[in-house]
Formats: sequence, C-alpha cells, structure tokens
Amino acid sequence: MHVFISERVKALTPYTPGEQPQDRKYVKLNTNESPYPPAPGVADAVRAEAEKLRLYSDPENHLLVAALAESYGLSEDEITVGNGSDELLNFAFIAFCDQNCPALFPDITYGFYPVFASVNGLPFEEIPLNDALEIDFADYQGKRGTVFLANPNAPTGIARSRSEIESFLKSRPDSMLVVDEAYVDFGAESMLPLIREYDNLLVIQTFSKSRSLAGARLGFAAGAPSLIKALNTLRYSTNPYNVNRMTSAAGVAALREQQYYNDNCARIMQTRAYTAEALRKMGFLLPESRSNFLFARHPAIGGEALYRGLKEKGVLVRHFAKPRTAAYIRVTIGTREEMEVFLMETEAILAAQT
Amino acid sequence: MHVFISERVKALTPYTPGEQPQDRKYVKLNTNESPYPPAPGVADAVRAEAEKLRLYSDPENHLLVAALAESYGLSEDEITVGNGSDELLNFAFIAFCDQNCPALFPDITYGFYPVFASVNGLPFEEIPLNDALEIDFADYQGKRGTVFLANPNAPTGIARSRSEIESFLKSRPDSMLVVDEAYVDFGAESMLPLIREYDNLLVIQTFSKSRSLAGARLGFAAGAPSLIKALNTLRYSTNPYNVNRMTSAAGVAALREQQYYNDNCARIMQTRAYTAEALRKMGFLLPESRSNFLFARHPAIGGEALYRGLKEKGVLVRHFAKPRTAAYIRVTIGTREEMEVFLMETEAILAAQT
Repeated sequence: MHVFISERVKALTPYTPGEQPQDRKYVKLNTNESPYPPAPGVADAVRAEAEKLRLYSDPENHLLVAALAESYGLSEDEITVGNGSDELLNFAFIAFCDQNCPALFPDITYGFYPVFASVNGLPFEEIPLNDALEIDFADYQGKRGTVFLANPNAPTGIARSRSEIESFLKSRPDSMLVVDEAYVDFGAESMLPLIREYDNLLVIQTFSKSRSLAGARLGFAAGAPSLIKALNTLRYSTNPYNVNRMTSAAGVAALREQQYYNDNCARIMQTRAYTAEALRKMGFLLPESRSNFLFARHPAIGGEALYRGLKEKGVLVRHFAKPRTAAYIRVTIGTREEMEVFLMETEAILAAQT
Repeated sequence: MHVFISERVKALTPYTPGEQPQDRKYVKLNTNESPYPPAPGVADAVRAEAEKLRLYSDPENHLLVAALAESYGLSEDEITVGNGSDELLNFAFIAFCDQNCPALFPDITYGFYPVFASVNGLPFEEIPLNDALEIDFADYQGKRGTVFLANPNAPTGIARSRSEIESFLKSRPDSMLVVDEAYVDFGAESMLPLIREYDNLLVIQTFSKSRSLAGARLGFAAGAPSLIKALNTLRYSTNPYNVNRMTSAAGVAALREQQYYNDNCARIMQTRAYTAEALRKMGFLLPESRSNFLFARHPAIGGEALYRGLKEKGVLVRHFAKPRTAAYIRVTIGTREEMEVFLMETEAILAAQT
C-alpha cells in the first residue's frame, strides 16, 4: 500500500480546518466568519458572471487588481490575488524561504504556518510567545529567516501597533517580513501604508472575514513589485486562473461598498466589547482582542470541557488541543443574539460545574 | 533587487496561458473553451449560493464528490476535487514523483507538465512523440518514473484507445500512470472504468471544456483510495477550501444535466468533422482529433504567419513556437458560424500567399 506516494507527502500532517458540520444547525462561532451577509451588490455581480462561465477568467484579474489598487492607493504591480489568502501564504513560504532562510513564527499562531513550511520541505522555527501570549520582537534578534507575523495574531486576537512592527522591520533590513492581516479590519493597524517604504515587507489580507466572503475564496497580497512578481511567477507556475470569474466579480463588487463593511466591522467590535465584558464578569481571563474573535479561559473549567459542553448545547466554538492553548476556547463574534445564546449556555455550564 | 526571492522561484519559467485579450472582440478559438453556455440549471445554482458566501464551504465538498461518485459509478473515497484540473495535476506531480521517480511525458503535450515538475523541484524527462506525433509506448519501456499522459493529447488532439493504455498500464505495474482526460468527452475513451482494477492509475478530468465551466475552475481526480488520500493530504496542506461554494454548486448542477452536455459534445464533434474536411480541402495536414480542437499545418504557410494573419482579421487561434510545433496552429472548435469565419479568413490568407 501507498507504494506510489512520495516520501514528502507520506510525511505530511495536514492542517485541520475548523469543523463545518453538515448534520445539524449550530450557533456557529468556530471559524471566524462574519455574521453579516456580503454587501448587496455582490449577489448581483455573481449572478451576472454566471452567464459567462464557459470562458476562462482574465488570468491577470485586471479589474479586481485595479479595484484593489484604487481602494488602497497602490499601483497594480504592487498587488496580486489568490484563491484565499491561504494560497498566497503558501506562495510566500516558497518564494521567501529556502534551506538557508528558514521561516520564523510564534509557537502560538495560525496553525497553517508549520504545514506550509512542511509541505514545501522548508526549515522553520517556532518562537514562543511570552507568558502574556504576546510576541516579543527581541526574541527574533539575530535570527536569520523570513518572519510570518499574523497581526492581529490568531487565536489570541492580540495586535501590535504599526509603529512597533515598523521598528521590527527596520531592525531586520536584510530579512523578509510577511504580515498576515486576516483580521486587521476589526480594530488593528494595517501595514499597507508602509509597503512603498520597505521592500522587505509583504502584507496579505483576505476577503473571508471582514468582507463576508469566506465561501468565495479571495485573498490579496501587497508589496514591492519585485515581491509581487515572485508570487505571480508561482501563480503562473501552478494555477494561472486561480481566482475564478465569480470570485473575482464578488471582490470587485465588495470593494465598491466599503461603507457597508465598515459598519459591519463597527457592529462586530461593539458586540466584541459587550461579550468580553460579560465573559470577564463570569470570571474568564482574556487578552484584549483586535480581531473578530475572543480567546478566553476560565479557572474553573478546561477549554476542551467547555468546547464540548457548548457543542452539546448547539454552540460551536474552537478548541486547540496543544499544551499552551488547551485551557482556552476561541469564540467568533457573531450577532448580538448569537452571543447572548453563547453567554447563556456558557453561564449554565459554569453553574453546573460548582 | 530580488534579494529576498528563493533560488527555486528565481529559476522558474512559468506556464504561458493562451491570450485572454481584453482589448477587442475576437472569434475566440485559442483556449479550447466550449462555444455553448453551461447547462441552464448552473446559473440558478450559483445564484442561490451567492446568498451564503459569508460561510466557508464544506472542505470535503461532500455534495459535489457524492454527485461525481454517482455519475461515474465510483465511491466517494475514490474521488477528489480541485480548483481546476491544473491544481490536481500539480498535486499529482508532488504526490507521485520524487528525486528517484521522475515525471515522464511526451515532448509535445500540455505545456504545463514541465512547469509543474520545475516548480516542485522534481526531475522529468520529455520523451519525443513519433513522426506522426503519436505516443509510442515502447519508448517508455524500462524507464523508471511516473508517466503523465494527456489523452487525447494536447495540442495534437490524438487519442489512444482504452485497451492500448491498459496494455501500457499492465506493462508497468510498479509505476504510476496519470491520465489527463481534459478532452476525453469529445470522442475518446475514458480510463475511469478501470480505476478499480489498477491501483497505479489516476484519472484527472476538468469541467472547463465539455461542461462549459472554464470560468468556474473545477477539476476532479479519480483513483484508488490510497492515491486520493495522498491528493487530499496535499489539499489540506495547502488550501482546504480550494473549491469555493459557487464552483461547487455549479459542478453539482452541471452533473444533473448530462444530456445537455452530451448534445453539446455531439454538436462540437460534428462541427469538428466539418472543419477538418474543409481544412483538408484547402491543403492542410492534420491528425485525426478526438478533442475540441484541431492541430493543423499547411505546406504554403508557417504556423506563426497564419496565427498572426488570423489575429489581424479578428480570429484568435493558438500557436506554439517550439521546433516541432511551429508549423502548426491549434484551433478550438467553436460554433459552426465561428468556424465558417475562421475557414473564410484562412482561405483568404492562403489566397494572398500565392
């Protein structure tokens, strides 16, 4: 058996995405989706594109790249797009790491980073967050390699400021920094305004969270033209039409309705503040989140027990069964109503404990 | 410049997809798209999905995999899906080749194969087609490696029969054979009925050609569960949600209307026969095509001159500027009306030559 499978693939442990159960209806707070639908124009744009599906998309995704460039005040050669930001992160590992340039990232961060390194046969080092689960940039001093920084970090939700990250960038002019800003629109500071100043900075964002397009798969990367060219070389060497017609149209339509999304993010941040306060009143400990989720632990109950208890009640949150994260649950900020259900069930579980 | 780019990426020459010009309207016969729209149910399915885009897709694409399994009489663990068949071909190179097991394929075939090998740092050997541009399986005798066989081949359009390929499979029980059946629905024989008999056979198909979904990006692979598991390991190690909601729904809807597509394929084959005959009357030489394109050369005019002449007249065909293919053009079979325009302009160009 498996005699035909390459050593590289036999050795792989894939990433485990959050559950997407098809069996019953949950209050689904486990994969950081937006509780609000895409902007009204998106469905129309997708509908219009459905008629043209017999034709390939523009492999350069010109309309989408131009719309992104306009939205962020960048040039088209400073941007590329991917089938979700995961695809672009994978390309960034291949483009900016090699045997002499390992990937460096925290021990607690997006769980896909070690998988991207492994699938590409690249060396990597996990550098522990401090006891407050914050990144300490001093720990990276003197270490050769490309740093992957999720900011805000997942699953902690903790963000560093633009000026802190800029100081870090300045301290490593000979190394690449890839900032994964999947959650930046929920109150953190983006590094996008700095990409023209630093040719060792790549910023990756996604439309899955703040723009409510998780089901469409759209990510983008911004950086110096030489960096974008390297990512495009990988696109055209693996999948030139990686972003399909419907997704491309959804992205363009979403960019036209930025105010709608700004309002959604503001609502989510309000609900986050409300939820965090309620959790703290119950005795939960949680860092300040700048994302659309909270990372919380309670002295009286383990993360797995709480996750299981909530799942039984029809509320799905995420638990990461690793030593430093096992005490926590990660809960996505849904609607106010969804969070009320989550809080009520959590309170009931805690009450049953004592 | 480029100081941050890995050696692997610096050395890459990406695949060149066919032109997708945005400047003017062409009779577009250059990228083997279907001239007919997707089945009527596809647009409705996509529309319905547009409302759900805030949520991730099912990473297992269960409904789509089940629909494929039913259509082809297979089990769900014998099938996986990709963001176009290009993604699955790339995975197949990674899963079934390594330093000791090179990729083997013809010198004239889908131009992406050498790129897939290169981007993954895998050894490969191009084995020349014979003078009739046919594959001679004897040339593979005694060569260790995984064979990638496009059947029908591109850009020649020539197919080998199921029994010929089965004999080849039987002669290499210790090696993988990947059959790329992108064009199989236009009159060739699929290897799908044999996957249960051979655990060294993987079949890859696409919805881009016969099913009119080039703009949606959907491919699938079928093979023994151990082979599919390896491909899924790569999916979950690079992009678990690789097939988005809209594409998945389009695929399920397309599978429900097989008769519509069978009728389209029959029409395309009729138009192919008509076009081939007209070309032969003009003095063109062309192998018998089992695909939705013709590969033709004329003693009086080079492939590039004909390609350029047609482009000036608003007819886009494909030319491959390599020694053994430079004399040819590859022309997609469009509607009868499109082929009339192509034939008329071709005749005019030939007349102007003499």
